[in-house]
Amino acid sequence: MTRVRIDLFSSLDGYTAAPDPAADNPMGEDWGPLTAAYAATRTFREKVFGDTSGAGTTGIDEAYASAFFTGVGAEIIGAAMFGLHAYPDDPEWKGWWGDRPPFAFPVYVLTHSAPRPSIPMEGGTTFHFRNDAIDDVLAEAVAAAGGLDVRVGGGVRTAQEFLRAGLVDDLHVAIAPIVLARGNRVWDDLRGLEQTHAVTTEVAESGTIHVTFTR
Amino acid sequence: MTRVRIDLFSSLDGYTAAPDPAADNPMGEDWGPLTAAYAATRTFREKVFGDTSGAGTTGIDEAYASAFFTGVGAEIIGAAMFGLHAYPDDPEWKGWWGDRPPFAFPVYVLTHSAPRPSIPMEGGTTFHFRNDAIDDVLAEAVAAAGGLDVRVGGGVRTAQEFLRAGLVDDLHVAIAPIVLARGNRVWDDLRGLEQTHAVTTEVAESGTIHVTFTR
Repeated sequence: MTRVRIDLFSSLDGYTAAPDPAADNPMGEDWGPLTAAYAATRTFREKVFGDTSGAGTTGIDEAYASAFFTGVGAEIIGAAMFGLHAYPDDPEWKGWWGDRPPFAFPVYVLTHSAPRPSIPMEGGTTFHFRNDAIDDVLAEAVAAAGGLDVRVGGGVRTAQEFLRAGLVDDLHVAIAPIVLARGNRVWDDLRGLEQTHAVTTEVAESGTIHVTFTR
Repeated sequence: MTRVRIDLFSSLDGYTAAPDPAADNPMGEDWGPLTAAYAATRTFREKVFGDTSGAGTTGIDEAYASAFFTGVGAEIIGAAMFGLHAYPDDPEWKGWWGDRPPFAFPVYVLTHSAPRPSIPMEGGTTFHFRNDAIDDVLAEAVAAAGGLDVRVGGGVRTAQEFLRAGLVDDLHVAIAPIVLARGNRVWDDLRGLEQTHAVTTEVAESGTIHVTFTR
Protein backbone atom coordinates (compact mmCIF):
# COMPACT_ATOMS: atom_id res chain seq x y z
CA MET A 1 0.00 0.00 0.00
CA THR A 2 1.64 3.21 -1.15
CA ARG A 3 2.14 5.89 1.48
CA VAL A 4 2.96 9.52 0.81
CA ARG A 5 6.02 10.64 2.78
CA ILE A 6 7.79 13.89 3.50
CA ASP A 7 11.10 14.45 5.30
CA LEU A 8 12.09 17.97 6.30
CA PHE A 9 14.90 19.64 8.21
CA SER A 10 14.13 22.39 10.71
CA SER A 11 15.96 24.53 13.22
CA LEU A 12 14.55 24.89 16.76
CA ASP A 13 12.91 28.10 15.64
CA GLY A 14 11.15 26.44 12.73
CA TYR A 15 13.31 27.50 9.80
CA THR A 16 14.88 25.52 7.03
CA ALA A 17 17.66 26.94 4.86
CA ALA A 18 16.48 29.20 2.08
CA PRO A 19 17.96 27.96 -1.19
CA ASP A 20 19.89 30.45 -3.26
CA PRO A 21 19.93 29.01 -6.79
CA ALA A 22 22.45 31.55 -8.03
CA ALA A 23 25.05 30.71 -5.38
CA ASP A 24 27.88 28.19 -5.40
CA ASN A 25 26.03 26.40 -2.63
CA PRO A 26 22.45 26.37 -3.99
CA MET A 27 20.97 25.01 -0.74
CA GLY A 28 22.12 28.10 1.17
CA GLU A 29 24.78 28.54 3.82
CA ASP A 30 22.55 27.38 6.69
CA TRP A 31 22.02 23.99 5.02
CA GLY A 32 25.29 22.63 6.40
CA PRO A 33 24.62 23.24 10.12
CA LEU A 34 20.99 22.19 9.63
CA THR A 35 21.89 18.81 8.15
CA ALA A 36 25.26 18.14 9.78
CA ALA A 37 24.05 15.21 11.90
CA TYR A 38 22.42 13.60 8.85
CA ALA A 39 25.43 14.18 6.64
CA ALA A 40 27.47 12.31 9.26
CA THR A 41 25.41 9.11 9.01
CA ARG A 42 26.69 6.04 7.25
CA THR A 43 23.71 6.02 4.88
CA PHE A 44 24.05 9.64 3.79
CA ARG A 45 27.79 9.30 3.36
CA GLU A 46 27.19 6.37 1.07
CA LYS A 47 24.06 7.45 -0.81
CA VAL A 48 24.73 11.15 -1.22
CA PHE A 49 28.49 11.47 -1.04
CA GLY A 50 29.42 8.12 -2.59
CA ASP A 51 31.53 7.09 0.40
CA THR A 52 31.45 3.29 0.31
CA SER A 53 33.98 2.84 3.13
CA GLY A 54 31.24 2.14 5.67
CA ALA A 55 32.27 5.14 7.74
CA GLY A 56 29.63 7.29 9.43
CA THR A 57 27.39 7.30 12.49
CA THR A 58 25.14 4.32 13.16
CA GLY A 59 22.75 5.54 15.86
CA ILE A 60 19.29 7.08 15.82
CA ASP A 61 20.10 9.59 13.07
CA GLU A 62 21.27 6.69 10.91
CA ALA A 63 18.01 4.80 11.51
CA TYR A 64 16.04 7.74 10.10
CA ALA A 65 18.53 8.26 7.27
CA SER A 66 18.29 4.60 6.30
CA ALA A 67 14.49 4.70 6.39
CA PHE A 68 14.62 7.77 4.16
CA PHE A 69 16.20 5.73 1.39
CA THR A 70 14.03 2.65 1.82
CA GLY A 71 10.80 1.81 0.03
CA VAL A 72 10.38 4.87 -2.16
CA GLY A 73 9.31 4.27 -5.77
CA ALA A 74 8.69 7.80 -7.04
CA GLU A 75 9.26 11.36 -5.91
CA ILE A 76 7.66 14.76 -6.44
CA ILE A 77 9.73 17.93 -6.11
CA GLY A 78 9.23 21.63 -6.74
CA ALA A 79 10.81 23.38 -9.70
CA ALA A 80 13.35 25.17 -7.49
CA MET A 81 14.58 21.88 -6.07
CA PHE A 82 15.30 20.61 -9.56
CA GLY A 83 17.01 23.88 -10.31
CA LEU A 84 14.56 24.85 -13.01
CA HIS A 85 14.65 28.54 -12.11
CA ALA A 86 18.43 28.69 -12.42
CA TYR A 87 18.44 28.25 -16.20
CA PRO A 88 14.79 28.55 -17.22
CA ASP A 89 15.52 28.95 -20.92
CA ASP A 90 18.14 26.24 -21.33
CA PRO A 91 16.53 22.98 -22.49
CA GLU A 92 19.88 21.24 -22.01
CA TRP A 93 19.99 22.03 -18.26
CA LYS A 94 19.48 18.80 -16.36
CA GLY A 95 19.29 20.23 -12.84
CA TRP A 96 22.01 20.30 -10.23
CA TRP A 97 21.75 16.72 -9.04
CA GLY A 98 24.66 15.63 -11.20
CA ASP A 99 24.80 13.03 -13.98
CA ARG A 100 23.69 10.28 -11.62
CA PRO A 101 21.06 11.73 -9.25
CA PRO A 102 20.52 9.81 -5.98
CA PHE A 103 16.91 8.86 -6.75
CA ALA A 104 16.95 5.83 -9.08
CA PHE A 105 13.22 6.18 -9.75
CA PRO A 106 10.88 8.62 -11.55
CA VAL A 107 10.98 12.16 -10.18
CA TYR A 108 8.08 14.50 -11.02
CA VAL A 109 9.07 18.16 -11.13
CA LEU A 110 6.21 20.60 -10.55
CA THR A 111 6.37 23.62 -12.78
CA HIS A 112 4.13 26.51 -13.75
CA SER A 113 5.90 26.70 -17.09
CA ALA A 114 5.09 24.65 -20.16
CA PRO A 115 6.33 21.11 -19.47
CA ARG A 116 9.59 20.18 -21.12
CA PRO A 117 10.44 16.66 -22.35
CA SER A 118 11.32 14.09 -19.72
CA ILE A 119 15.03 13.63 -18.97
CA PRO A 120 16.35 10.12 -18.34
CA MET A 121 19.51 10.20 -16.20
CA GLU A 122 22.09 7.59 -15.29
CA GLY A 123 21.22 5.24 -12.45
CA GLY A 124 17.49 4.93 -13.05
CA THR A 125 16.31 8.47 -12.34
CA THR A 126 14.00 10.08 -14.90
CA PHE A 127 12.87 13.66 -14.45
CA HIS A 128 9.31 14.36 -15.61
CA PHE A 129 7.92 17.90 -15.74
CA ARG A 130 4.28 18.53 -14.87
CA ASN A 131 2.14 21.64 -14.52
CA ASP A 132 -0.98 19.77 -13.40
CA ALA A 133 -2.83 19.92 -10.09
CA ILE A 134 -0.87 18.33 -7.26
CA ASP A 135 -3.37 15.52 -6.70
CA ASP A 136 -3.16 14.59 -10.40
CA VAL A 137 0.64 14.52 -10.25
CA LEU A 138 0.40 12.49 -7.06
CA ALA A 139 -1.90 9.96 -8.77
CA GLU A 140 0.63 9.59 -11.58
CA ALA A 141 3.49 9.19 -9.10
CA VAL A 142 1.55 6.58 -7.11
CA ALA A 143 0.99 4.58 -10.28
CA ALA A 144 4.67 4.87 -11.20
CA ALA A 145 5.79 3.82 -7.71
CA GLY A 146 4.47 0.30 -8.27
CA GLY A 147 3.29 -0.22 -4.71
CA LEU A 148 6.25 1.50 -3.10
CA ASP A 149 5.92 4.88 -1.38
CA VAL A 150 5.86 8.32 -2.97
CA ARG A 151 8.06 10.95 -1.41
CA VAL A 152 7.30 14.64 -1.69
CA GLY A 153 10.89 15.75 -1.67
CA GLY A 154 10.55 19.49 -1.22
CA GLY A 155 11.26 22.33 -1.14
CA VAL A 156 9.35 23.28 1.92
CA ARG A 157 6.63 25.21 0.05
CA THR A 158 5.89 22.17 -2.09
CA ALA A 159 5.80 20.03 1.06
CA GLN A 160 3.37 22.46 2.71
CA GLU A 161 1.07 22.37 -0.31
CA PHE A 162 0.74 18.60 0.01
CA LEU A 163 0.42 18.74 3.81
CA ARG A 164 -2.32 21.39 3.75
CA ALA A 165 -4.20 19.43 1.09
CA GLY A 166 -4.23 16.43 3.45
CA LEU A 167 -2.29 14.28 0.98
CA VAL A 168 0.54 13.22 3.31
CA ASP A 169 0.58 10.03 5.41
CA ASP A 170 4.01 10.34 7.03
CA LEU A 171 5.91 13.51 7.90
CA HIS A 172 9.33 13.32 9.49
CA VAL A 173 11.03 16.51 10.68
CA ALA A 174 14.65 16.40 11.86
CA ILE A 175 15.12 19.40 14.16
CA ALA A 176 18.73 20.50 14.60
CA PRO A 177 19.44 22.06 18.01
CA ILE A 178 20.33 25.44 16.54
CA VAL A 179 18.54 28.77 16.16
CA LEU A 180 18.65 30.12 12.59
CA ALA A 181 16.26 33.09 12.82
CA ARG A 182 16.09 33.21 9.04
CA GLY A 183 15.21 31.06 6.05
CA ASN A 184 11.98 29.42 4.95
CA ARG A 185 9.45 28.65 7.66
CA VAL A 186 8.75 24.93 7.96
CA TRP A 187 5.47 24.88 9.87
CA ASP A 188 3.31 27.68 8.51
CA ASP A 189 -0.44 27.07 8.46
CA LEU A 190 -0.27 23.50 9.73
CA ARG A 191 -2.21 24.10 12.96
CA GLY A 192 -3.66 20.94 14.44
CA LEU A 193 -1.53 18.50 12.43
CA GLU A 194 -1.21 16.49 15.68
CA GLN A 195 -4.98 15.94 15.56
CA THR A 196 -5.03 14.24 12.16
CA HIS A 197 -1.72 12.40 12.68
CA ALA A 198 -0.13 10.58 15.60
CA VAL A 199 3.06 12.27 16.80
CA THR A 200 6.31 10.77 18.06
CA THR A 201 9.37 12.64 19.35
CA GLU A 202 12.85 11.20 19.83
CA VAL A 203 16.32 12.63 20.43
CA ALA A 204 19.39 11.22 18.65
CA GLU A 205 22.89 10.98 20.06
CA SER A 206 23.75 14.10 18.04
CA GLY A 207 21.08 16.12 19.87
CA THR A 208 18.91 16.17 16.74
CA ILE A 209 15.20 15.91 17.57
CA HIS A 210 13.23 13.60 15.29
CA VAL A 211 9.49 14.29 15.12
CA THR A 212 7.13 12.09 13.11
CA PHE A 213 3.48 12.58 12.18
CA THR A 214 1.77 9.41 10.98
CA ARG A 215 -1.79 8.59 9.97
CA MET B 1 26.55 32.23 42.60
CA THR B 2 23.33 33.65 41.23
CA ARG B 3 22.32 32.50 37.76
CA VAL B 4 19.71 34.13 35.57
CA ARG B 5 17.14 31.59 34.36
CA ILE B 6 14.30 31.53 31.90
CA ASP B 7 11.74 28.77 31.29
CA LEU B 8 9.49 28.98 28.24
CA PHE B 9 6.85 26.85 26.58
CA SER B 10 6.82 26.45 22.81
CA SER B 11 4.92 24.52 20.19
CA LEU B 12 6.85 22.65 17.49
CA ASP B 13 6.37 25.65 15.24
CA GLY B 14 7.86 28.05 17.77
CA TYR B 15 4.77 29.69 19.22
CA THR B 16 3.68 30.22 22.77
CA ALA B 17 0.12 31.11 23.66
CA ALA B 18 -0.74 34.78 23.22
CA PRO B 19 -2.25 36.04 26.49
CA ASP B 20 -5.61 37.74 26.25
CA PRO B 21 -5.88 39.81 29.42
CA ALA B 22 -9.53 40.63 28.84
CA ALA B 23 -10.60 36.98 28.61
CA ASP B 24 -11.78 34.57 31.30
CA ASN B 25 -8.60 32.60 30.59
CA PRO B 26 -5.96 35.36 30.47
CA MET B 27 -3.21 32.99 29.26
CA GLY B 28 -5.16 32.28 26.07
CA GLU B 29 -6.88 29.12 24.90
CA ASP B 30 -3.69 27.51 23.54
CA TRP B 31 -2.05 27.63 26.97
CA GLY B 32 -3.74 24.42 28.08
CA PRO B 33 -2.50 22.15 25.26
CA LEU B 34 0.92 23.85 25.39
CA THR B 35 1.42 23.13 29.10
CA ALA B 36 -0.64 19.95 29.55
CA ALA B 37 2.35 17.70 30.25
CA TYR B 38 3.67 20.15 32.84
CA ALA B 39 0.29 20.61 34.46
CA ALA B 40 0.19 16.82 34.91
CA THR B 41 3.40 16.69 36.96
CA ARG B 42 3.34 16.14 40.70
CA THR B 43 5.21 19.40 41.33
CA PHE B 44 2.88 21.57 39.26
CA ARG B 45 -0.19 19.94 40.75
CA GLU B 46 1.12 20.77 44.19
CA LYS B 47 2.70 24.19 43.63
CA VAL B 48 0.25 25.71 41.19
CA PHE B 49 -2.99 23.86 41.83
CA GLY B 50 -2.54 23.21 45.55
CA ASP B 51 -3.03 19.45 45.15
CA THR B 52 -1.13 17.97 48.11
CA SER B 53 -2.25 14.40 47.44
CA GLY B 54 1.05 13.50 45.80
CA ALA B 55 -0.71 12.65 42.54
CA GLY B 56 0.90 13.54 39.22
CA THR B 57 3.56 12.30 36.83
CA THR B 58 7.07 11.65 38.15
CA GLY B 59 9.19 11.26 35.00
CA ILE B 60 11.32 13.63 32.95
CA ASP B 61 8.70 16.39 32.84
CA GLU B 62 8.54 16.25 36.64
CA ALA B 63 12.33 16.60 36.89
CA TYR B 64 12.17 19.87 34.94
CA ALA B 65 9.10 21.04 36.84
CA SER B 66 10.79 20.38 40.15
CA ALA B 67 13.93 22.21 39.05
CA PHE B 68 11.74 25.12 38.00
CA PHE B 69 10.67 25.63 41.61
CA THR B 70 14.08 25.09 43.17
CA GLY B 71 16.69 27.69 44.02
CA VAL B 72 14.98 30.86 42.82
CA GLY B 73 15.19 33.88 45.11
CA ALA B 74 13.66 36.63 42.98
CA GLU B 75 11.76 36.98 39.72
CA ILE B 76 11.31 39.58 37.00
CA ILE B 77 8.14 39.65 34.91
CA GLY B 78 6.60 41.91 32.30
CA ALA B 79 3.66 44.15 33.10
CA ALA B 80 1.27 41.98 31.11
CA MET B 81 2.20 38.92 33.12
CA PHE B 82 1.28 40.71 36.33
CA GLY B 83 -1.94 41.84 34.70
CA LEU B 84 -1.08 45.50 34.88
CA HIS B 85 -2.70 46.31 31.55
CA ALA B 86 -6.01 44.81 32.62
CA TYR B 87 -6.79 47.52 35.16
CA PRO B 88 -4.17 50.22 34.58
CA ASP B 89 -5.95 52.86 36.64
CA ASP B 90 -6.93 50.76 39.63
CA PRO B 91 -4.30 51.03 42.39
CA GLU B 92 -6.14 48.30 44.32
CA TRP B 93 -5.63 45.74 41.55
CA LYS B 94 -3.14 43.16 42.78
CA GLY B 95 -2.75 41.15 39.57
CA TRP B 96 -4.36 37.86 38.72
CA TRP B 97 -2.09 35.58 40.69
CA GLY B 98 -4.58 35.37 43.55
CA ASP B 99 -4.16 36.34 47.20
CA ARG B 100 -1.29 33.91 47.65
CA PRO B 101 0.85 33.97 44.47
CA PRO B 102 3.08 30.93 43.89
CA PHE B 103 6.37 32.87 44.14
CA ALA B 104 7.18 33.36 47.84
CA PHE B 105 9.94 35.85 46.99
CA PRO B 106 10.25 39.37 45.55
CA VAL B 107 8.80 39.77 42.06
CA TYR B 108 9.87 42.78 40.00
CA VAL B 109 7.24 43.91 37.50
CA LEU B 110 8.62 45.88 34.54
CA THR B 111 6.42 48.79 33.55
CA HIS B 112 6.63 51.83 31.32
CA SER B 113 4.16 53.63 33.60
CA ALA B 114 5.03 55.52 36.76
CA PRO B 115 5.89 52.92 39.40
CA ARG B 116 3.17 52.21 41.94
CA PRO B 117 3.85 51.25 45.56
CA SER B 118 5.05 47.71 46.24
CA ILE B 119 2.37 45.15 47.12
CA PRO B 120 3.13 42.55 49.78
CA MET B 121 1.03 39.41 49.29
CA GLU B 122 0.38 36.38 51.45
CA GLY B 123 2.98 33.64 51.36
CA GLY B 124 6.09 35.77 50.99
CA THR B 125 5.57 37.28 47.54
CA THR B 126 6.03 41.05 47.20
CA PHE B 127 5.37 42.75 43.87
CA HIS B 128 7.68 45.66 43.10
CA PHE B 129 7.10 47.91 40.08
CA ARG B 130 10.07 49.28 38.14
CA ASN B 131 10.43 51.36 35.01
CA ASP B 132 14.24 51.23 34.96
CA ALA B 133 16.60 49.66 32.42
CA ILE B 134 16.49 45.87 32.51
CA ASP B 135 20.08 45.49 33.70
CA ASP B 136 19.35 47.82 36.63
CA VAL B 137 16.28 45.84 37.57
CA LEU B 138 18.30 42.66 37.22
CA ALA B 139 20.99 44.02 39.57
CA GLU B 140 18.32 44.81 42.15
CA ALA B 141 16.77 41.34 41.76
CA VAL B 142 20.18 39.67 42.09
CA ALA B 143 20.77 41.55 45.35
CA ALA B 144 17.32 40.57 46.61
CA ALA B 145 17.82 36.91 45.67
CA GLY B 146 20.48 36.51 48.36
CA GLY B 147 22.66 34.13 46.39
CA LEU B 148 19.78 32.18 44.89
CA ASP B 149 18.89 32.42 41.19
CA VAL B 150 16.86 35.11 39.47
CA ARG B 151 14.17 33.94 37.11
CA VAL B 152 12.95 36.06 34.22
CA GLY B 153 9.41 34.76 34.31
CA GLY B 154 7.99 36.15 31.08
CA GLY B 155 6.08 36.95 29.03
CA VAL B 156 8.01 35.91 26.02
CA ARG B 157 8.84 39.46 24.90
CA THR B 158 10.38 40.20 28.29
CA ALA B 159 12.32 36.94 28.09
CA GLN B 160 13.60 37.87 24.62
CA GLU B 161 14.77 41.28 25.86
CA PHE B 162 16.96 39.61 28.46
CA LEU B 163 18.17 36.92 26.06
CA ARG B 164 19.15 39.39 23.35
CA ALA B 165 20.95 41.54 25.92
CA GLY B 166 23.07 38.50 26.83
CA LEU B 167 21.84 38.53 30.43
CA VAL B 168 20.61 34.92 30.63
CA ASP B 169 22.68 31.98 31.86
CA ASP B 170 20.09 29.18 31.59
CA LEU B 171 17.24 28.91 29.12
CA HIS B 172 14.89 25.94 29.24
CA VAL B 173 12.26 25.52 26.54
CA ALA B 174 9.60 22.83 26.88
CA ILE B 175 8.36 22.09 23.36
CA ALA B 176 4.94 20.45 23.21
CA PRO B 177 4.49 18.12 20.21
CA ILE B 178 1.72 20.23 18.72
CA VAL B 179 1.48 22.78 15.90
CA LEU B 180 -0.21 26.03 16.97
CA ALA B 181 0.42 28.26 13.95
CA ARG B 182 -0.52 31.30 16.00
CA GLY B 183 0.46 33.12 19.16
CA ASN B 184 3.66 34.85 20.21
CA ARG B 185 6.86 33.69 18.55
CA VAL B 186 9.34 32.24 21.05
CA TRP B 187 12.60 32.35 19.13
CA ASP B 188 12.69 35.60 17.17
CA ASP B 189 16.09 37.22 16.71
CA LEU B 190 18.02 34.66 18.75
CA ARG B 191 20.18 33.37 15.89
CA GLY B 192 23.33 31.62 17.08
CA LEU B 193 22.21 31.13 20.69
CA GLU B 194 23.78 27.66 20.43
CA GLN B 195 27.15 29.35 19.92
CA THR B 196 27.12 31.28 23.21
CA HIS B 197 25.39 28.50 25.19
CA ALA B 198 25.72 24.71 25.30
CA VAL B 199 22.57 22.95 24.13
CA THR B 200 20.93 19.76 25.39
CA THR B 201 17.82 18.07 24.01
CA GLU B 202 15.75 15.40 25.76
CA VAL B 203 12.32 13.87 25.21
CA ALA B 204 10.00 13.13 28.13
CA GLU B 205 7.55 10.24 28.41
CA SER B 206 4.78 12.67 27.42
CA GLY B 207 6.51 13.42 24.10
CA THR B 208 7.45 16.90 25.33
CA ILE B 209 10.89 17.97 24.07
CA HIS B 210 13.05 19.71 26.65
CA VAL B 211 15.78 21.95 25.25
CA THR B 212 18.29 23.71 27.49
CA PHE B 213 20.83 26.42 26.69
CA THR B 214 23.49 26.85 29.40
CA ARG B 215 26.57 29.02 29.68
